[in-house]
Amino acid sequence: MFKHSQLESVKAALMHPDYAKYPLYLRIQRALRQLILDGVLQANNPLPASRALALSLNVSRDTVENAYSLLHAEGYIERQVGSGSFVAEVPQLQKPKRIIATQPTKQPTIQLSKRGQGMLNNEGVREALTPHPFAPGIPETRLFPLPLWLRLERQVIRDYQFKALQHSDPQGTKELRSAIAHYVNLERGAHATPERILILTSSQQAIALCALNLLDAGDRIFTENPMYQGARKAFETAGLIPVPIPVDQHGIRVDLLKQHSTPVKVVSLTPSHQYPTGATLSLERRLELIEWAEQNQAWIIEDDYDSEFHYVGKPTACVQGLDPYQRTIYIGTFTKSLFPSVRIGYMILPAQLVAPMTTARTLQDGHTATISQLTLACFIENGHFGAYIRQMRQVYAKRLITLEKLVRTHLKEFLEPLPPLGGMQMPCVLICGLNEKVIIEDAKEKGIALTGLSSLYITTPTQTGFLLGFAAYTEREMELAIQIIRKVFTDNSG
Amino acid sequence: MFKHSQLESVKAALMHPDYAKYPLYLRIQRALRQLILDGVLQANNPLPASRALALSLNVSRDTVENAYSLLHAEGYIERQVGSGSFVAEVPQLQKPKRIIATQPTKQPTIQLSKRGQGMLNNEGVREALTPHPFAPGIPETRLFPLPLWLRLERQVIRDYQFKALQHSDPQGTKELRSAIAHYVNLERGAHATPERILILTSSQQAIALCALNLLDAGDRIFTENPMYQGARKAFETAGLIPVPIPVDQHGIRVDLLKQHSTPVKVVSLTPSHQYPTGATLSLERRLELIEWAEQNQAWIIEDDYDSEFHYVGKPTACVQGLDPYQRTIYIGTFTKSLFPSVRIGYMILPAQLVAPMTTARTLQDGHTATISQLTLACFIENGHFGAYIRQMRQVYAKRLITLEKLVRTHLKEFLEPLPPLGGMQMPCVLICGLNEKVIIEDAKEKGIALTGLSSLYITTPTQTGFLLGFAAYTEREMELAIQIIRKVFTDNSG
Repeated sequence: MFKHSQLESVKAALMHPDYAKYPLYLRIQRALRQLILDGVLQANNPLPASRALALSLNVSRDTVENAYSLLHAEGYIERQVGSGSFVAEVPQLQKPKRIIATQPTKQPTIQLSKRGQGMLNNEGVREALTPHPFAPGIPETRLFPLPLWLRLERQVIRDYQFKALQHSDPQGTKELRSAIAHYVNLERGAHATPERILILTSSQQAIALCALNLLDAGDRIFTENPMYQGARKAFETAGLIPVPIPVDQHGIRVDLLKQHSTPVKVVSLTPSHQYPTGATLSLERRLELIEWAEQNQAWIIEDDYDSEFHYVGKPTACVQGLDPYQRTIYIGTFTKSLFPSVRIGYMILPAQLVAPMTTARTLQDGHTATISQLTLACFIENGHFGAYIRQMRQVYAKRLITLEKLVRTHLKEFLEPLPPLGGMQMPCVLICGLNEKVIIEDAKEKGIALTGLSSLYITTPTQTGFLLGFAAYTEREMELAIQIIRKVFTDNSG
Repeated sequence: MFKHSQLESVKAALMHPDYAKYPLYLRIQRALRQLILDGVLQANNPLPASRALALSLNVSRDTVENAYSLLHAEGYIERQVGSGSFVAEVPQLQKPKRIIATQPTKQPTIQLSKRGQGMLNNEGVREALTPHPFAPGIPETRLFPLPLWLRLERQVIRDYQFKALQHSDPQGTKELRSAIAHYVNLERGAHATPERILILTSSQQAIALCALNLLDAGDRIFTENPMYQGARKAFETAGLIPVPIPVDQHGIRVDLLKQHSTPVKVVSLTPSHQYPTGATLSLERRLELIEWAEQNQAWIIEDDYDSEFHYVGKPTACVQGLDPYQRTIYIGTFTKSLFPSVRIGYMILPAQLVAPMTTARTLQDGHTATISQLTLACFIENGHFGAYIRQMRQVYAKRLITLEKLVRTHLKEFLEPLPPLGGMQMPCVLICGLNEKVIIEDAKEKGIALTGLSSLYITTPTQTGFLLGFAAYTEREMELAIQIIRKVFTDNSG
């Protein structure tokens, strides 16, 4: 017999707020399923006839029939012509809890792998979601020609039709690889062919792929010191041990790298303007590094970040184009030169690394979205990319001058600005003995994002200060932010 | 003195086809740079005055000046007022080759890490770029409402403006997480909240993240046998050792899993319809598996692939919604239910895994493209997704019936079809003693893609045959392909 108390349970379960948006038959099915799983309705107990249950619940008989059919299909009830429906033999869970439970009450220790725990501990790479001064690495997006981009996208879809919806080459579309090869050869003095380009989602993915493909866990890698945190974390995640090489005004000290006693097979660097110091690697060091790589059959990972934005003269051509031995892996991205959410980066690879890197990429996430790739190819080939870069270079150059002036005017007792030749952020060195971390915390409370220079060192920091992003903020926005920082400084000096 | 022969070298270098599309000043700069790097122009040699060179090359003096400025900025030449320009001291590369070289002549052994070599050896996950029978796992894209999708995208951009261009939450936009939570709770009987969903690029990325975060290299993982190749390769790439558990008509043999002597902390499976057999995991086994996971503090990875497409009755609700202990990780994707190039997949995570998985994701590739996420959220919330799934379910159901009929009519001496209750592919068992591999090779030559069943076994295959994809192909396309296969079979039987 189906007891009155059981009917009440069904009615109560039906009212559960999580079911509110479900169709009626599904609310009934879920309520009955839950009562069976919880053992309130037990094996071999009869269920009321659908007509009777419909009447008590004041719903149509079809609704109950639909619920019963689904319960039957999923194995919760048995149905026999003539003798009605019964609860099936369903194994009881040892500790029945409400499935519609909220968070578990006691938070158990997280069971992660060692590498999973390592990633959690290093906190990953967190980009500012809403641009606010002075978060570095964020481009201005308010000037992007979005209507033009959308028009090109519509054209791409007219041209490619449903082909644009299918899987595309994991190496990237030919159209985009050709457009990039032409662009980097012309603008960066690279030596790229479409066959040697691999389209990715971001430069972070490029760095992660290099770490996996070129080195095993426990292997060493030469890095700049100080260096970009995202690369360092990617290397550590892959189990690599960074071997820090100092940086001076001409970039990484290639002489020290060459003298190193332990053999290391990969060096990762930012030659165009070193992150965070802004130093450009000298020609002599570039050629020395290339020769070292060839002699040691080592790889050079060249992260050419922000190289589109060079404000004083022409930017130095990239290492990759100087390297006749194909020992250099060039990394570029459009998440800064276009907009962060475009999710397109790329590598120019030595011929022998094209197949391994492409294969590895298919195992991680397949390929990059086709429509964005084709739209970007159009955007580059029709000259819009070049024009947009020229426009933004002027905007950013002005903002850099503004920021330098603001720091020199309002923060001169505290900070010495070191304006770089290019890029989207300016290092400023603390000259007042104040504590970097304290300033960062205080500024954060007031809505200002400061990145500490000392966090970028692998060894004991030789400088403290901040890396101030300027690209995404107008003159007015920076002025207001500098006033707030001034107050933070003076409050802490008091 | 600048010799006549040197001038001829400059002229020759200028004609290099790789420079054809460059502006004139850059052609001159590249030509001179190359001659300096190659040692044709040596340190301290004078360069001709810009006026003189302009005359010999028949270009304007400004053009030569621009080339000289760039050479100077990059460190290739010295300039002294009054005494002109000289080649700078530039380290010579030991083996000067033409930078504009083609592929290296001798292909050296590729220097990859052990894990890089492992990925290259397993050949990655290659999806059919142009759908052709009977490649599995490919959806029909020709019926997708592309104009509607583009209209929603324009609406998204009107609503979000430049916000849509910025970095977005690495966990995924709230809009899409909410839309997915509602959908999977309703349609898959899941128990999801937006806070426990992580938006990714594909289910491959989800599987790879699970492998990294939950287990270390050398750890064991329970898998189905036979199983999906993409998952197996992802596990092996992460250094895991698959422990194969047999599958019968009710899915994975949970009893055998529980009896296993070695403790294993993760099981990966496809309960909705097992890949490739199509078996649905019985309710009893689901509950047993959940209990096993809770008692052993183990994780269940539930790949709910293709569950949108169930043709006989309602699909069984997912394991995740039955699990009151939060031991289940649910993986879903839109690359099959919408279109492959959309690049959006997701996981429903136990609360304690949200932070670790999100952090790990930022280290791999940052986040998923914002505009596609927001467009998809609109598409789901406005009911278009549900409508499209219903439409495609009917299309695919008909195609499955067609394919079964074609196999039974034209290939009955060779193949026994095992029509599944859902999904996009049908297993067919070889009943004629012909060699699976030979048939696959022969069919491939004739443009037909056959996936062998034996390649999906971890242990010695207990069946040979093929997994025939049917979703992406019209009745006519399948008819033609079956005729070709028939010829392959009869030719090989002869």
